Amino acid sequence: MKSYRKELWFETVTRRAFINITGQIENCLYESRIQNGLLLCNAMHITASVFINDDEAGLHHDFEVWLEKLAPEKPYSQYRHNGFEDSADAHIKRTIMGREVVVAVTDGKLDFGPWEQIFYGEFDGKRRKRVLVKIIGE
Amino acid sequence: MKSYRKELWFETVTRRAFINITGQIENCLYESRIQNGLLLCNAMHITASVFINDDEAGLHHDFEVWLEKLAPEKPYSQYRHNGFEDSADAHIKRTIMGREVVVAVTDGKLDFGPWEQIFYGEFDGKRRKRVLVKIIGE
Amino acid sequence: MKSYRKELWFETVTRRAFINITGQIENCLYESRIQNGLLLCNAMHITASVFINDDEAGLHHDFEVWLEKLAPEKPYSQYRHNGFEDSADAHIKRTIMGREVVVAVTDGKLDFGPWEQIFYGEFDGKRRKRVLVKIIGE
Repeated sequence: MKSYRKELWFETVTRRAFINITGQIENCLYESRIQNGLLLCNAMHITASVFINDDEAGLHHDFEVWLEKLAPEKPYSQYRHNGFEDSADAHIKRTIMGREVVVAVTDGKLDFGPWEQIFYGEFDGKRRKRVLVKIIGE
Repeated sequence: MKSYRKELWFETVTRRAFINITGQIENCLYESRIQNGLLLCNAMHITASVFINDDEAGLHHDFEVWLEKLAPEKPYSQYRHNGFEDSADAHIKRTIMGREVVVAVTDGKLDFGPWEQIFYGEFDGKRRKRVLVKIIGE
Repeated sequence: MKSYRKELWFETVTRRAFINITGQIENCLYESRIQNGLLLCNAMHITASVFINDDEAGLHHDFEVWLEKLAPEKPYSQYRHNGFEDSADAHIKRTIMGREVVVAVTDGKLDFGPWEQIFYGEFDGKRRKRVLVKIIGE
């Protein structure tokens, strides 16, 4: 069994952002030389997500509007977590969007359907944060 | 390390449906001859889910009602994604229900608690769509 | 390839509770002697979750309030599942919080960011229920 590990770093200029990281994950897989196995990609921070969906700006806008309705950022005082912080909404938004994805690796490629793309979802940005890529297989 | 891969195809007659696929996944595991490892089962489409819950019609009705309240299908114009499509609600519903499950394989069986069943969740059906089963282990 | 399996049992005194199980999972990993691989931790019951977030009481209170707003426990009659049971809200809450986490194992440790902690989320407690830990690797 082979294994591979890499951290990817991100720093968004806005509090919230969706970044397509599929190309970077494909580079990791290529570097790993693993042909067959499982790839885990997870946010290493608890106010960020990794998820799979469509790379379409309208949908990303819909997600932003929908998440703000479900777990609004403000007023900060509505959350008990926000005593010394203002990130409670980000913890909740990340929960909805998910921490991680597990992707099959087949013939050295991400074994994806036609429209699957991997995104980093930032909900408390403006600082350097990490994503972990771990691949095991042969 | 052994690995196994199979695609399962579905075509629902309704836009939304939940299908119990546990038996089909068990057949895959049997075919794989893997005794010990991890099984990944994921929707290959971004408007469908794979999730684990109870095989009870009342609960499935509750999920349908609850998802429609959280992310209603109509009016289509409420979503920016729906310029050329009408599937924005399906992308959001699939996000809530999840893309994938990872299941332990022990002694050649799905290592499940008493009521765990695997479902395909369709949110934009009436066409052929796929689920991926990938198993690694020994 | 090595593999390891263990069940962890919980019985909460309240219907809902969040329990930090990171230490117990670290003990499992130590026992497994696996240095490199993937660790799956999942609820074996469909009214409970395993998830990763912050070990902060204010945030846990925020989750409780938010989940009760999204899928209220009462009135029980609002859910069709509640013919012979009262657990429909627990099935929905567990869906939001997630069934499982997959964690990278590197150098014999959970490969975590600074604040990641693993929780058992109970939504229909007051009875003995199980979590499964499965580790594969080398």
